[in-house]
Amino acid sequence: MDNLRYRTISFLSDYGTKDEFVGVVKSVIRTLSPDSTVIDISHEVKAHDIRAGGLALARSAQYLDPGVVLAVVDPGVGGARKGIAIEVNGGDYIFVGPDNGLLAPGVAMLGESSRAVELNNPEFHLPSLSSTFAGRDIFAPVSAHLCQGVPFEELGSPIPVHALQPGLLPVGGVDGEIATAEILWEDRFGNLQLNLSPEDISGLGESFSLRFGETVRRIQKVRTFEEIPNSEIGLIVDSSGLLSLSMYGRSASEELQLYEGQQIELTPITNETSSSSPVTLRKQR
Amino acid sequence: MDNLRYRTISFLSDYGTKDEFVGVVKSVIRTLSPDSTVIDISHEVKAHDIRAGGLALARSAQYLDPGVVLAVVDPGVGGARKGIAIEVNGGDYIFVGPDNGLLAPGVAMLGESSRAVELNNPEFHLPSLSSTFAGRDIFAPVSAHLCQGVPFEELGSPIPVHALQPGLLPVGGVDGEIATAEILWEDRFGNLQLNLSPEDISGLGESFSLRFGETVRRIQKVRTFEEIPNSEIGLIVDSSGLLSLSMYGRSASEELQLYEGQQIELTPITNETSSSSPVTLRKQR
Amino acid sequence: MDNLRYRTISFLSDYGTKDEFVGVVKSVIRTLSPDSTVIDISHEVKAHDIRAGGLALARSAQYLDPGVVLAVVDPGVGGARKGIAIEVNGGDYIFVGPDNGLLAPGVAMLGESSRAVELNNPEFHLPSLSSTFAGRDIFAPVSAHLCQGVPFEELGSPIPVHALQPGLLPVGGVDGEIATAEILWEDRFGNLQLNLSPEDISGLGESFSLRFGETVRRIQKVRTFEEIPNSEIGLIVDSSGLLSLSMYGRSASEELQLYEGQQIELTPITNETSSSSPVTLRKQR
Repeated sequence: MDNLRYRTISFLSDYGTKDEFVGVVKSVIRTLSPDSTVIDISHEVKAHDIRAGGLALARSAQYLDPGVVLAVVDPGVGGARKGIAIEVNGGDYIFVGPDNGLLAPGVAMLGESSRAVELNNPEFHLPSLSSTFAGRDIFAPVSAHLCQGVPFEELGSPIPVHALQPGLLPVGGVDGEIATAEILWEDRFGNLQLNLSPEDISGLGESFSLRFGETVRRIQKVRTFEEIPNSEIGLIVDSSGLLSLSMYGRSASEELQLYEGQQIELTPITNETSSSSPVTLRKQR
Repeated sequence: MDNLRYRTISFLSDYGTKDEFVGVVKSVIRTLSPDSTVIDISHEVKAHDIRAGGLALARSAQYLDPGVVLAVVDPGVGGARKGIAIEVNGGDYIFVGPDNGLLAPGVAMLGESSRAVELNNPEFHLPSLSSTFAGRDIFAPVSAHLCQGVPFEELGSPIPVHALQPGLLPVGGVDGEIATAEILWEDRFGNLQLNLSPEDISGLGESFSLRFGETVRRIQKVRTFEEIPNSEIGLIVDSSGLLSLSMYGRSASEELQLYEGQQIELTPITNETSSSSPVTLRKQR
Repeated sequence: MDNLRYRTISFLSDYGTKDEFVGVVKSVIRTLSPDSTVIDISHEVKAHDIRAGGLALARSAQYLDPGVVLAVVDPGVGGARKGIAIEVNGGDYIFVGPDNGLLAPGVAMLGESSRAVELNNPEFHLPSLSSTFAGRDIFAPVSAHLCQGVPFEELGSPIPVHALQPGLLPVGGVDGEIATAEILWEDRFGNLQLNLSPEDISGLGESFSLRFGETVRRIQKVRTFEEIPNSEIGLIVDSSGLLSLSMYGRSASEELQLYEGQQIELTPITNETSSSSPVTLRKQR
């Protein structure tokens, strides 16, 4: 391992594990750079969901071992979008993948894009008659060659970093006392991450009305899942440091029928004498 | 690898692979102990199902490479339950996870708990503003530090091993000639593991009536799946050394509509002249 | 790693990841050959689907790192079928698994079977009271021992390579101007791989009528997914070098309601003035 430029390739994709795509990418890397290690971040990003992939990268970024970050959610594979590599902070990390906005949120969490190249030097690709599997034919061998010490600038033509596709993420906000947010992420346990941080609602108290569609529901800030009363919804600081709608031992998403991409509103409840039991109101039609 | 105290971290959780939880835990370990290897046992334990996780650990235990066993099924994360490490047999294995009964069945399969600590020394944790991801913030760095040689007793305050949460598993049994059992595990292939061993029913013959709900079905002891006649149910010694209800090339669970946690009864059939064709009787209502 | 005979074990199975089967196999390997690396090809082959497993091996084969290829889709485990090892090209690869046709397509993609043995030397197996988990008890330890340098011929009795079970794959073909094919593989993205190569239909033009059941649909050869017009079906050279029915950013399988194992027919459309809009005709009944 001592002779490697990078020892770790962190790998995220929408390839799934039903097929052999992930295994083939790893086999290519294993052949070209046997001493580097691939860490799977996730391969179950929803097919073609660039935003979900970008968010998963952003949430993971600060924990990734320095090295190559290989990310592939690439509906336009083989077409006009470029294959790229982005050098972060002068070389702590190199992101490799398609130039479609997928990489930007992860890069932004780690620092500055110092350089970028289009991956158009075929010397570091596998020969292929097909345009459909750039992960295998371009991104995997490039990642392996980077670990082996191939200089960044040899991978292809330089691109100005300001010309890269940005990753556009929805921003939540507070207007007066009304916080508006979007469900960024529904995790396996049914926790619903909002694009709001605890700071966004500091000073608005501990209790809120959660509103979406025709539902109104009282929720409460908590520090742990355990503090959430049975059948109620808590507002917790999640592992990304954002606010999340959660239940204790159950799925908030299922309980609320609320999913990624939906909008919600939080308004403070200042009358602390009101009932704390869960309540669902429906407007009369 | 020569300088590692432990080379292997065997990792089981209910994190799933849809999200990046598993990848982030491995990234933390990779950063802190790059030469140790993580072996995934499974991450598809049903969310919050401590019993299922404990059983999977127990079934795997005797095959695990000596080292750290990191297990996380932790509905009470961040709350009153402790994070713990348990030293097994003076240090062959160290189990790391929540003190909620998850670890006990695996430890018991491997030997004796020689020491235990509460993981309350923050020096070996990641700083975090959130209480929701102890796998990343506490259990992963502790596991990595153990591999790197941090002494067990530095991880936190000692706990008497008899004060740890036990793992309560249902025990099957034979009363006279009636064996009563529970479905411990339904595997991917639809095999149904019972909490009965071959010894429990030795001397009761080769053929049994299987009863549950209103179903009665004749089953036969077999040595291999292949010996099970088409559309019939066999009683086979499975890979854990327990008895399992199985079919040949098909799912016994689907055929019988029988699942984890359900109770069944086996009674010997001594009249070997009776029909061997499968039969389902239903009581008249 | 320098002392290993083989450094890599590529591992494919139908074990799934819901249970601990894969983790236990890897734990056995880790214990017996700690410096070899397991590359997961896929473990989500449909339960007992030998053909699907064989096809996944064939598609992966040329990308696998030289070494051991461990493959287990084994409905007859413990029964009459043999456990085998096949040496390929004098030792570049050793395939380990059941003799049921699973290994043959992958071996054929890599070269010649130079030798084969039945895995009947118990010295290289784990002791077991059960017949149901040969992956753990036979194939994993054999794979690990091969990495450690145990000579091939010590694993068991030689078998003539012509006596091994063949892998029977359906062959597509062109009769006059009508190409008949079968759906070999539906991938995660809904691409439908045909058993036809671009050469099979070269000279028949760029546009075809796709027929199956009562559906007739106009399709067009394309070089990239991006060239496929919205809501239309393209005929693309896929990552295996075979023709595939695909859509851009959507599932062709879902759109066409067409799945693995179904038959289709392609006939050239020479009148290039006809409409290029997608059309579905149904015969009158």
